[in-house]
Order: sequence, then structure tokens, then C-alpha cells
Amino acid sequence: MDLNTSTEIAHRGIRLPGGVTLDCGVHLATVEIALSSVGTLNAARDNVVLVCHALTGDQYVAERHPLTGKPGWWARMVGPGLPIDTDRYYVLCMNVLGGCMGSTGPRSPRDAAEAEPWGTDFPPITIRDMVRAQRQVIAELGIARLFAVVGGSMGGMQVLQWAASYPELVFAAVPMATASFHSAQNIAFNEVSRQAIFADPDWSGGRYWAEARTPARGLAVARMMAHITYLSEEALTRKFGRRLRGEQHGTAAPLSLFGEMFEVESYLRHQGSSFVNRFDANAYLTITRAMDYFDIAADHDGDLAAAFAGTRTRFCVISFSSDWLFPTAQSRAVARALNRAAANVSFVEIETDKGHDAFLLDEPALDRTVRGFLAGAAEHAGLA
Amino acid sequence: MDLNTSTEIAHRGIRLPGGVTLDCGVHLATVEIALSSVGTLNAARDNVVLVCHALTGDQYVAERHPLTGKPGWWARMVGPGLPIDTDRYYVLCMNVLGGCMGSTGPRSPRDAAEAEPWGTDFPPITIRDMVRAQRQVIAELGIARLFAVVGGSMGGMQVLQWAASYPELVFAAVPMATASFHSAQNIAFNEVSRQAIFADPDWSGGRYWAEARTPARGLAVARMMAHITYLSEEALTRKFGRRLRGEQHGTAAPLSLFGEMFEVESYLRHQGSSFVNRFDANAYLTITRAMDYFDIAADHDGDLAAAFAGTRTRFCVISFSSDWLFPTAQSRAVARALNRAAANVSFVEIETDKGHDAFLLDEPALDRTVRGFLAGAAEHAGLA
Repeated sequence: MDLNTSTEIAHRGIRLPGGVTLDCGVHLATVEIALSSVGTLNAARDNVVLVCHALTGDQYVAERHPLTGKPGWWARMVGPGLPIDTDRYYVLCMNVLGGCMGSTGPRSPRDAAEAEPWGTDFPPITIRDMVRAQRQVIAELGIARLFAVVGGSMGGMQVLQWAASYPELVFAAVPMATASFHSAQNIAFNEVSRQAIFADPDWSGGRYWAEARTPARGLAVARMMAHITYLSEEALTRKFGRRLRGEQHGTAAPLSLFGEMFEVESYLRHQGSSFVNRFDANAYLTITRAMDYFDIAADHDGDLAAAFAGTRTRFCVISFSSDWLFPTAQSRAVARALNRAAANVSFVEIETDKGHDAFLLDEPALDRTVRGFLAGAAEHAGLA
Repeated sequence: MDLNTSTEIAHRGIRLPGGVTLDCGVHLATVEIALSSVGTLNAARDNVVLVCHALTGDQYVAERHPLTGKPGWWARMVGPGLPIDTDRYYVLCMNVLGGCMGSTGPRSPRDAAEAEPWGTDFPPITIRDMVRAQRQVIAELGIARLFAVVGGSMGGMQVLQWAASYPELVFAAVPMATASFHSAQNIAFNEVSRQAIFADPDWSGGRYWAEARTPARGLAVARMMAHITYLSEEALTRKFGRRLRGEQHGTAAPLSLFGEMFEVESYLRHQGSSFVNRFDANAYLTITRAMDYFDIAADHDGDLAAAFAGTRTRFCVISFSSDWLFPTAQSRAVARALNRAAANVSFVEIETDKGHDAFLLDEPALDRTVRGFLAGAAEHAGLA
């Protein structure tokens, strides 16, 4: 494996010798995909679980993040003895094509001869392009088939795309907190995120890197807004309610018109400001666009079941009752289409008040579901 | 009445001789409240319906807006023969204190001697302050009692505040699409709006007027985000779905990474850009803060029923089934508190997929409810 050094930090990665031809028609000649792995690949190379990350996630699923120093984003799900058990499975996670944690994206140099990054000239990417690149990585690694593909939110979109594009390569699939298309409301939220970035003069028409600037304010606003959509009203109320910060607690009259007042405001500002240190604005634009384009049924004349016709993949579709970004109805529609396709599918709605982010949080019912489904699938797959 | 000329346009208005002492302790010596009226005040002066406007509304409830040239924001509700029948009632509507359509607010001169506007030095305003100013206007007009106070969203907050602060002055009250407090989620959305404005360098720390600039991009982003919360997922899907704009319809591959793509995006951009021509950024900051502070029960040791103890006002509480900004549960809590206070209250949840904005839109069930409730109340009030 190569060391990918297109960003400040050296990420482990794979260079795809043939590049990738994208849905938009552009051929990317130079493509590197950054990845991480946990666990041991068995001799038969058939114990691979591919974990797909969400919009602002990355490949650091179970190991400490090199930029933030925080534990992996799914360290509570992936590890020895955990639901995705690394004593048993070899877990792979790749930074998506178009991302900013080592995989080829807007921040990558245009080509070997030119150090200038792609920036906004980076071609539009689709979820299918991301999965196409992942499929080539798998081939490079000499892995013939994935035991399972698992992911939430945009990660779940990739799971569905894997199952639709390469059914024979996916033994089991766990799409969670996701949908087969991005809804009008979700496109609208993404568009406001993008407008917040465009509105920041430091974005400089996308050429902020040329002036060593970063559209931190716009990106922070985008993140703050998105963060609200990841939580439920109940979760926000439980965590913050209408509590004022610090000593102002309980005072009736506001002390300052524009200062921090409510705890929920302080929390959001922190979410916004910490995000800009680890994410690239143009990558945010590219990846939100990819989510917006996503519509598996559209590739099959509007018939979602047709996308999975004849599939032998075993599915476990998971939704969360308080998720209003990817509501249960959208997961149920996926499960119904899979049923129409005569697929082997179980559908679980997990009762929780944690909202969309529940897939990342402490949810014992989620752990039991993932652990149980993978164990059952492993038995059917004949995994030792 | 004075002509208020604090903005480019002459608005009809009232100067409050004693000024207003605010909840924050500041005394505003110079206060003008801009207003409009439709219909005829009867000899007994007892046929007054006060309509309270929402966050971005103003006093132009039924007449053509002098800036936009569009019909009044509730022209479908207020007029001859309409549910709020101006053949029968004298309808008053005032621009809120802190607003930007002629009432004293951040854009007003600090005092007679100084032409410089308040800007961000304008003191924090509460919903109670808005209502306190309205109550003084009513007194100036020689009106002893209001037949009804009606409003949606922040207008509904004012209705509830009127009933709590001046119960003897309010014969009937119609709060719709509102709540007795602003929720953590709604505070969070407002905070992102404010951060979007702060992030715009043209906001200039609130002194944009000094440089003849306007934080148009930040204000547009704020408006775009807020606009999503005014609609339901169903309404967005019905209106726009995933349709692409113009000739791009049906093409699988995106033509441009950052250009307009989906119809919903184009719609939002229009909402954002048209808003900045009619609204002041500092007023937006001031009014969103007032909404966030709103919590009637907090003024009564957390007991919402106590806020309405002994009230003889007749209430009609209205919610909309697909409103997720002010969900039905919050209106139901108001109705229950009114029941505990032994108030005369009816509660109507209107089935609609139009979301929060339903109170502004064509909803025959809403029209019937308002018309019927006001007619019944008029009978009880002995209105001719």
C-alpha cells in the first residue's frame, strides 16, 4: 500500500492503477483511496466487513483520529468483542472519493505534474462513483467478496449502492438511518449549507487554498445547521432545554443581546468551530452534492425493486423512530422494495429519542441487532 | 397620527408619549409604533380585532406592501366578507417594537438629537415588551378593550402574552401555530440564523448602515434555512420533489457541480434574495432573540395555568398537523393549561400537509374555524 501524502497527515491508502471513470463522464486518471483496517484478514479472505462512513466521517472508524485525537467515530461498534467484532471480522473503512482525509478529492493535486489542487474544478461525484472506487480497492486488495457492508446515513446510501451495483460481491448488507433517495427537504438543507459556504468571502470562489485562507465561518454555519437535523427535538430538549449558560441561569432579563445565552447555542457554536479544523469546504460541497443526486430507483425507471432484482444478499434495514432526516418511512420503503424483489430482508425500527445520530450513539438495541444479524449471516456464509 | 419617516418609506404610526420601559430595565424614551387599519371603528369602539404578525411579517396585513408591491400577508384572511370580516370588525395591525417597518427598532435613530441608528446597541426586546407597546398604542387610540387578538407563530406568542398580561382587555384570543415557549430546537435554528448574519463581513459588527452596506448574503442564508422550517417535508416533496430545473430535467449526470440543479434549490435562493430587500439584519437578530426568550410559564414559576388564572377571555387555539416548528403537542399543552385555568377554550388541530406556513395559506378549515369562532364570540360580546 502507498502512503498517501496529499494532505498534511500521512494516511494509509491505495492507488487505483486504472483511475476511475465517473458517472459524469470524466475519467480521473489519478485516484488514491485512503483506508484503515482493524482485525485480521483470514486465509480465505472471506471475513471482510466494509464500513461506509457518513457525510463528515472518514476512515478512522475504530482508531484514534490523527487530526482530532479523538477515538474512532464508531469505536463503540467496531472492535474486539463489539457488535462488529474485530476478533472475527476484518473491518475495512475507506475515505470516500471526493473526501478530504487522504482520498482523491477537491483538495488533491490535479495531476502528478501540477501541484495546484482541483478545488471547484473537481468533477461532480455520485454515491455510485464512491462505491465504484471502493470496489476497485477491494480488487486491488485481492478480496473476491465482502462478507458484509455496513453504514449509516450517507454510509447507508453506499451500502444500498453496493448491493445494487455489485450484488454478487455482497453477502450481507446493513443500511441504517438512510434512504434510497435524498428527499426534497434534505436537498434543501444541503443547499443552505452550500449557500453558507458560498457566502463566506474567504471561500474565494473555491480558491481559498491559493490564498491560504479557509471559509471557516461559512463552513461552521453549515455544520451548525446540519447538526440540528442530526438530533431530535426530544434530544435537544433533554440535553439543553431552555437552560441559560453559567451564572445567567434563572435570570429573567437577558444580559446581552448577541452574546451566548442558551446552552444549546453554546453547544452549536462549538460544533461549528471544531468542525472547520478537520474538514475541507470544497469536499463538503462535493459530498453534499453526491447525496443530493442519490436516487437508486431513478437508475431503474423509478422501480426500486428492480434495482435489487434477483439479489441473494441478506439485508438488515435499520431505522430510528426519532430520526426526522431519514425517517422510518424511507427505510420501510427500502424494505418493501426488497420484499418485492424477493430478497432476504429483515427490518428493524429502533425506538429512541436520539434522532438521526442514534446510529453513532449508545443504543443497546442497535448493538443487539447488528451483532445478531452478522452472527446469523456468518453462519449462513459458513464463516468459521 | 404621526407619519413615521424613520425609513425610506412613510409609514402611518403612533408616537408613545411616555416611551416604554423594557423587561431588560432600559427605558426607551422615544418610541413610535407603525400600524395599519382596515374597516371602521364603531361608535362603541368595541369591534377591534388586533392582528399580530410573525417574525418577518409587518403591519401590512391586508393592504398592498409599499416595498414589495405584493398584497398584504393575510389578505386572504382579512377583508370584506373574509373570516376576519372588515365589514364588521376594525382590524388593527402594528409593526412590532424592534421591527424595521416603521416601528422603533435597531434601525431607528437613537434619539431626536442624534441621527445615528441604534444598531446593535438597541436593547434586547421581549414578546412582553412588544405587547406592552401595543397596549399603549391601544390606549392612545382611545380603545378600552379589544374584541379579539389573533395571530400565528410569533404572532400567536403575542396573542398569548396579551391574554396573560392584560386579560381584562382581551375578549377573545386566537393563537395559532404557536407555543407558550420557544423550544430548544427552535432556539437552535434561530441561533444558526444569527450566526449566518454574524458570519457575513458586510454585517460589520452590526454597523453596516454606517458604511451603506447590507449583510445580504448572511441574511439570505438565514432566511433560506428558516424557510425550510416553515414548510413540511410533504409540502416540499409535493411542490418540488427531486425535479431538476429546466432542460436538465431527467438527465442522469449533473452538468455543473455548484450551479442550480434542483427546483427546490432555486426556490430557496429566491426566498433568500427577495427577503434581504425588505428586512433589516439587526431587526432580525433582535426579533429572533425575543422569540427565544419567550416562556410565559417561566413568569409564573413554571405553571402555565397560573398565567391565565381567572381569565374570562375566550380562546380558540389552532394548530396544524404537519407543523414541525410549532407542533400540535405545544398547542395542546396551551389548551390544557387553559383548561386547568378553567378558561373558555376550544382547540382545533387542522389536518394539512402545508407545515407551519399553513396559517398563511389556503386552508378552508382554518377559514371556517376563525370565522365561526369570531362570530360566536361576537354574539357573546353583544357586538351588533
